[in-house]
This record gives sequence, structure tokens and C-alpha cells, in this order.
Amino acid sequence: MIFKQGDKFEEKFQVTEDIHSGFIQLFKDKNPLHTSTGFATEKGFSGKVMHGNILNGFLSYFIGELLPVKNVIIHLQEIQFKNPVYLNDEVLFSAEVSEIFESVNAIEFKYSFRKADNKIVAKGKIQIGLLL
Amino acid sequence: MIFKQGDKFEEKFQVTEDIHSGFIQLFKDKNPLHTSTGFATEKGFSGKVMHGNILNGFLSYFIGELLPVKNVIIHLQEIQFKNPVYLNDEVLFSAEVSEIFESVNAIEFKYSFRKADNKIVAKGKIQIGLLL
Repeated sequence: MIFKQGDKFEEKFQVTEDIHSGFIQLFKDKNPLHTSTGFATEKGFSGKVMHGNILNGFLSYFIGELLPVKNVIIHLQEIQFKNPVYLNDEVLFSAEVSEIFESVNAIEFKYSFRKADNKIVAKGKIQIGLLL
Repeated sequence: MIFKQGDKFEEKFQVTEDIHSGFIQLFKDKNPLHTSTGFATEKGFSGKVMHGNILNGFLSYFIGELLPVKNVIIHLQEIQFKNPVYLNDEVLFSAEVSEIFESVNAIEFKYSFRKADNKIVAKGKIQIGLLL
């Protein structure tokens, strides 16, 4: 087994204007919380709130590109959104191998996304399988 | 409360070439399972497997655009991937209000994505909050 419990991974991501507008173009979610500064501030936020599922796109990159092996597939994902991400925010992604199910070649990671001030914006877990 | 337990929603999505290539351009996940027919068939699939997180993009559209109100925000999401989605596959999304937490203005949906032959490709739940 190439993974060991406690193995750690980190990556910095930024929710740029290109990612925000590209996500909207791709998935057509123009909800005013994501597109109207007026609507978002009226609801108590500091600006347009970035789509939470942009973070799930970063998780795709983590599994597909940052692991030491390529023969992986996602079995399940969970994400809890704790604090808003705003345009151009940088988020630090950290993940750790939390469980290994050796008999079925599956690995579980716990992960979080934090802002520069260390505030958690989202956290959860992902389970992947190794393709033989 | 605008939602009632059992309220149902449906939408058809298709994982087109534009969505597949747009997702790769946005999130840089070029894992060979998603980009190499040779790799994917060697691993036992019928072709390139579409990124599971494309379905999470469709969930963003569901919450942001298909609900009868716009003042919504996602609290948490879970997704289990059961069967592969291939290029140009159509998937039928179905969701149902499974719980209402009236005192905190939160609603939980159970959902699934199925192919035309009724095979489930993914399922899970989403909890949202109503913004006051």
C-alpha cells in the first residue's frame, strides 16, 4: 500500500475571477448570492459569495493530480461549508490519510480549506479506491 | 416554510464535450482516467470516465437555480459515486425534501443521478439554509 495513515498533502488555491466566471459559464448557477454584491451584502456577507462547489473542483485536482499515483477513483465525498469564500480569496487546502481499508484498496482522507487568517472555510472527507 | 417534506425536483443534465473540456480547463484535473481512453479501458471501463465533481457542479445549479427561492446557501453536501458516467451520457437528477429543520431554517434533500437505463450513477444528500 503506497499510502500510510497520517500522510499529509497541502496546496494553495485561489478563487480568481477566471475561476468564478468559468464556473458560472460551465454550470449556469447565477444565483444572486454569487453574482450580485447588493444581494450578498443585504444578506450579511462582505461581498459576492463564491460557489461552494468550486472547492469541490479543487478536490478533483487534489485526487487526480496531487497524489503520488494516478490509478485512483473517488468513491464518496463530504463537504461542510463553514465560512464564505470571496472573490480572489486564497485558500490553503490540507489533507491527511485518515483511514486505510487495505482489503478493498480504499483510502480515506480528512481535509480542510482555510483562509490566510487560519479560519476554516470548509472541511470534510473523501474516500478513494485504487484501480488495479 | 416554503418547502414541505416530500417536495420533488427533477432535471436532465448531459455531460457534453464542452462541459468535460471546460471542467479540465477550470480545475486542471487531467488524470488519465478522465483523459485517456486507453488508460480507462485498461482499468475496466468502457471509455474515459467523466469527473465525479461535474455532478457536484450540477448540484450547484440545482440549489442556485431550480429551487423556488433564491435566498439559499449550501451547508453540507455528500455524494457517493456508484457507477461511471461517460462522455455525452445524459443523467436524470431527482431530489426530494427529506428533512426540514424549521427552527434553524434549514432543509435537507436526498438526491440521485440516474442514467437512461435507470442505473444510479451517484446519490447523496445536501443541506441548505434559507438566508433571511
